[in-house]
Amino acid sequence: MPMRIAQVAPLIESVPPKAYGGTERVVSYLTEALVDMGHDVTLFASGDSVTQAHLVPVVERSIRLDPSHPDWLVWTTLMLEQVFESASRFDVIHFHVDHLHFSLARRCKTPCVTTLHGRQDLPDLVPLYQRFREQPVVSISDSQREPLPFANWCATVHHGLPEDLYRFHPTAQDYFVFVGRMSPEKRVDRAIDIALNCGVPLRIGAKVDMADRAYFESQVRPLLDHPLVDYVGEIEEHQKNDFIGNARALLFPIDWPEPFGLVMIEALACGTPVIGYPCGAVTEVLEHGVTGYVVNDRQQAIAAARRIDRIDRRECRRAFEQRFTARVMAERYVDVYRSLIARTCTPVLQEA
Amino acid sequence: MPMRIAQVAPLIESVPPKAYGGTERVVSYLTEALVDMGHDVTLFASGDSVTQAHLVPVVERSIRLDPSHPDWLVWTTLMLEQVFESASRFDVIHFHVDHLHFSLARRCKTPCVTTLHGRQDLPDLVPLYQRFREQPVVSISDSQREPLPFANWCATVHHGLPEDLYRFHPTAQDYFVFVGRMSPEKRVDRAIDIALNCGVPLRIGAKVDMADRAYFESQVRPLLDHPLVDYVGEIEEHQKNDFIGNARALLFPIDWPEPFGLVMIEALACGTPVIGYPCGAVTEVLEHGVTGYVVNDRQQAIAAARRIDRIDRRECRRAFEQRFTARVMAERYVDVYRSLIARTCTPVLQEA
Repeated sequence: MPMRIAQVAPLIESVPPKAYGGTERVVSYLTEALVDMGHDVTLFASGDSVTQAHLVPVVERSIRLDPSHPDWLVWTTLMLEQVFESASRFDVIHFHVDHLHFSLARRCKTPCVTTLHGRQDLPDLVPLYQRFREQPVVSISDSQREPLPFANWCATVHHGLPEDLYRFHPTAQDYFVFVGRMSPEKRVDRAIDIALNCGVPLRIGAKVDMADRAYFESQVRPLLDHPLVDYVGEIEEHQKNDFIGNARALLFPIDWPEPFGLVMIEALACGTPVIGYPCGAVTEVLEHGVTGYVVNDRQQAIAAARRIDRIDRRECRRAFEQRFTARVMAERYVDVYRSLIARTCTPVLQEA
Repeated sequence: MPMRIAQVAPLIESVPPKAYGGTERVVSYLTEALVDMGHDVTLFASGDSVTQAHLVPVVERSIRLDPSHPDWLVWTTLMLEQVFESASRFDVIHFHVDHLHFSLARRCKTPCVTTLHGRQDLPDLVPLYQRFREQPVVSISDSQREPLPFANWCATVHHGLPEDLYRFHPTAQDYFVFVGRMSPEKRVDRAIDIALNCGVPLRIGAKVDMADRAYFESQVRPLLDHPLVDYVGEIEEHQKNDFIGNARALLFPIDWPEPFGLVMIEALACGTPVIGYPCGAVTEVLEHGVTGYVVNDRQQAIAAARRIDRIDRRECRRAFEQRFTARVMAERYVDVYRSLIARTCTPVLQEA
């Protein structure tokens, strides 16, 4: 039976985003998959969003791109008011905007659920989730939950991509690939070291945020001179298919609790195996020896890169299709919605 | 009859603030005056606040001074939850935190009122106050209302200071004074020009915010070399009494819609007249020819400065005592609270 579902997106980027914006991409994939499954979906998002769902255009343009610098907090306050004013029209409301709505959600009769898209290991979040411990939250990996074991986790729902977004690439060209932000915790330096030790070219597609500019200039730029290293700057969505798909492997030698790591499943969708360090969601996404290798140190990483041809690229694509499509993600969220609706729907707090 | 009143302060500074913080100073003066009048007052504020009221210490330390950089939005969310959880224990809740609570306030049975402490001429505020047009708001000057004529203004309540905070200074020394931030709209350059044209020394007590550093270095620093100009940096609260009180006049040649301008009433409390440009609240605070002069241009400003001795300093102090004490402010707020309580207390929005 179709459900009336509200999706509440951040207003910083449009849904889907014009450029970088992992959360907005996932909200878009989920929204379209739910519509395809026959649900009645309403998307609260910026007015330049594009969707098959009913769009409530909260603000004319996504805030990051608007030269008039709209006030994010004002527009998010306005969005939440619109959402809760119309709450009775939905069977479930799904938030992707952190925690600003928690006080309103616990006073609302319509079931609310929040997917946490960011890292949760920040000290201020402990008192927040202690006070709002009844708020249903979804993790995007099991590892993301670790700092907040007492929160009301309903499920882990891994991210998914539309099945046809990336094309299976049965054979690879002779290079490794690194895709991500040029920030210290992504460890492009490790990726360069691994590739050079194998004598294999490395192609790097990465944006440099303002915050990372000093790190990039001092730590990374000197490493880019090597003839085997090809830094192409930030790559567009439509370029990723071949950029990642033609690589022998995606190098993902991260050094932080990555909550999910979309690029890993982009690689798998292409049939490209992944070599990752066991931080954050890596061990949940990768099957060691099947879709790539999980390595603990430099030596293991280089050894894994040298034997990457033992990984069957068809297995990578198969793992993607079984576990990481938008349809799989949407079905898991529908399960979450149904179980929330099945609970007695009394607001935790009645009006005082 | 005593009322049960909640005061909800920003968490950035303590109440009162350790250093600069106009809003937190006013919240402190109001809170203490209400307690002195016999009301049962609860102050939601940072834990390093000092008050005779019941303090709810939302966060251990005021956020600006805490080296661990607490997340303002997380702690404000937590504060609002604490406020609305205990709403039924209060007769009225008075907010000083802009608009983040509006959605919760319109769903709350206890009357809520918000004092707007900042400038309101920002384009995003128009749709905000259109949507929340029933929310009772208090302006700190009539002029502050201009950009939002459709908001639910309950009253203008001018700021007030404790009667004994500043001492009457019957005679002046031979200097003018400028006190404020070193920002372009405060126009310290005009103050210097006026003083030099009168051949009277100017003492400047002003902080330079990070945002204003470039302006200060390029536009202001070159003007400070003159022997009649004495820039003493940022001055402490306890220094203001004599710094302002001994001056022949406070020069206030602003160039922006100043919502109130606390320093004007600090000067009046000392008996020091004020020469102001007619922006923002200036014409409401000053009585032209009685407590100073409101001037329209450079020529009028210089002429006014030259005849400042015609102003009776006792009239300045008298105007302060009649119109701008914390007690007067608190009495006006009590009137606002009583009229809100007298209205039928049904939340605008029942839970959907």
